Amino acid sequence: VGVGDDTAVLAGGLLFATDVLTEGVHFDLRWSTPADVGWKALAVNLSDIAAMGGTPRAAVCGVVLGAGRQGQADDLAAGIMAAAAELGCPLVGGDTVVGAALTVTVAVIGDSPDGGAVLRSGAQPGDSIFITGPLGGSKAALGALRRGGAADPVALARLQRPVPRLVEGRTAAAAGASAMIDLSDGLSSDLAHICRASGVGARLQASAVPVGPGAVVDDALSGGDDYELCFTASDPVRVAEAFAAAGLHLPAPIGTVTVGDEVLLATPAGGTWPLAPSGWEHTVE
Amino acid sequence: VGVGDDTAVLAGGLLFATDVLTEGVHFDLRWSTPADVGWKALAVNLSDIAAMGGTPRAAVCGVVLGAGRQGQADDLAAGIMAAAAELGCPLVGGDTVVGAALTVTVAVIGDSPDGGAVLRSGAQPGDSIFITGPLGGSKAALGALRRGGAADPVALARLQRPVPRLVEGRTAAAAGASAMIDLSDGLSSDLAHICRASGVGARLQASAVPVGPGAVVDDALSGGDDYELCFTASDPVRVAEAFAAAGLHLPAPIGTVTVGDEVLLATPAGGTWPLAPSGWEHTVE
Repeated sequence: VGVGDDTAVLAGGLLFATDVLTEGVHFDLRWSTPADVGWKALAVNLSDIAAMGGTPRAAVCGVVLGAGRQGQADDLAAGIMAAAAELGCPLVGGDTVVGAALTVTVAVIGDSPDGGAVLRSGAQPGDSIFITGPLGGSKAALGALRRGGAADPVALARLQRPVPRLVEGRTAAAAGASAMIDLSDGLSSDLAHICRASGVGARLQASAVPVGPGAVVDDALSGGDDYELCFTASDPVRVAEAFAAAGLHLPAPIGTVTVGDEVLLATPAGGTWPLAPSGWEHTVE
Repeated sequence: VGVGDDTAVLAGGLLFATDVLTEGVHFDLRWSTPADVGWKALAVNLSDIAAMGGTPRAAVCGVVLGAGRQGQADDLAAGIMAAAAELGCPLVGGDTVVGAALTVTVAVIGDSPDGGAVLRSGAQPGDSIFITGPLGGSKAALGALRRGGAADPVALARLQRPVPRLVEGRTAAAAGASAMIDLSDGLSSDLAHICRASGVGARLQASAVPVGPGAVVDDALSGGDDYELCFTASDPVRVAEAFAAAGLHLPAPIGTVTVGDEVLLATPAGGTWPLAPSGWEHTVE
């Protein structure tokens, strides 16, 4: 398996992925410290490992410091080392240069679960669709900050220092998840990736989507940067039992995989609407 | 083995490294195309694998395209894909964003040779010091370009599209290399890394250092970006036999590892001078 899933899957089940965070696109130093950026650079890569049901093994990090702002290096390093320790993925190498704008590129390797990595392409009509937690909090927090207001503190902490759902990903894999993705671009976009890769459609219940602090349903459908997992599975009871046995919050069932290629949203009023993938801009208006 | 060698060496001998190339620091688009930059970004990472005696397995690539210059993406991709094919390392994943300046961060994994990765720290007094090819050509070519002149075409091609010495690295490992490094920063700097890591000194014969096209001895001692390998080994006959059996040019013996911590240069006139590590600026005057 090469380019196109959350990570590449190499012979022997080794997972390999990279993500770039660059100033003005993925973060804004008005409301994230360099330490937050370092944390997030590792965390978003680990979220890709989580989306395969995998376990991280090690990471390397390439950093461009903005000219005249080399003083950010120590703070950045403290953030990424904190994430390495707390999220259980040693940082084993790196390269730091001075250039135009703060840019942090992490690459991570990991191991597939025993049953093999969970790809985006395995969803089957009739499967249930789950998400591991409430959505939209990051979008709502970012919107509040942009308007000069105060963000919900829980949502802001999650925007600044997301926690990859590694245990949830492994638990979903063990419970027979047929397809999985991490919600970095937003539910409407990322679920469309699963549907396209699997050759299926989906029908979501708008009222079943858990909404994050300070957010509304539209934020939950279109907002990115939440780093919860979305997965499909044929046996909802097995999923619930596995998450309960692991001491995790139960994932929310939000809809069903369908034949075809449409992603439909069923509203409480009884109508159904096509759910268009909405682009998610991390920091830019 | 963590941070500090050419690559990290993980359990099972897996090698893992990353290098960042950013515009204005590592390349100048006046004399390198985006395709050259893509080639070089992968090649310099493979040179790190070569310096461990290893074999590359796969690479991932994070790219920042300068705003308004997204048209460079296709050319860059062509260059990195050409390197992947010709140098034998599949590119299995990536992430591309638009930001401040062209930046290419490649991460690579590879496998150690059967006898274990060759570190920087194994040089022993009495070992011979070898380099796999002539040095200084990149510095001389860059100097000619900066003065508005014409560069030696062979040296210029090597500056634009370096070829990592993968076969040479594996052959040196099989011939009992005790320490090895790739010459990215220049002989004086990189040999000092081996001496410091190994707790030894070195004595070089200036007249024995092969000098690249268009270059002089000082270029060969201080110039970087050549991507030849420097290694130490106790048995020069075994080294020569192994390289000959592999159909390779014989590496040049340029000196001897000594007790102590000084790196001395013996001149043809009979004097010896301390060889200070000289910083190497890839493109900046």
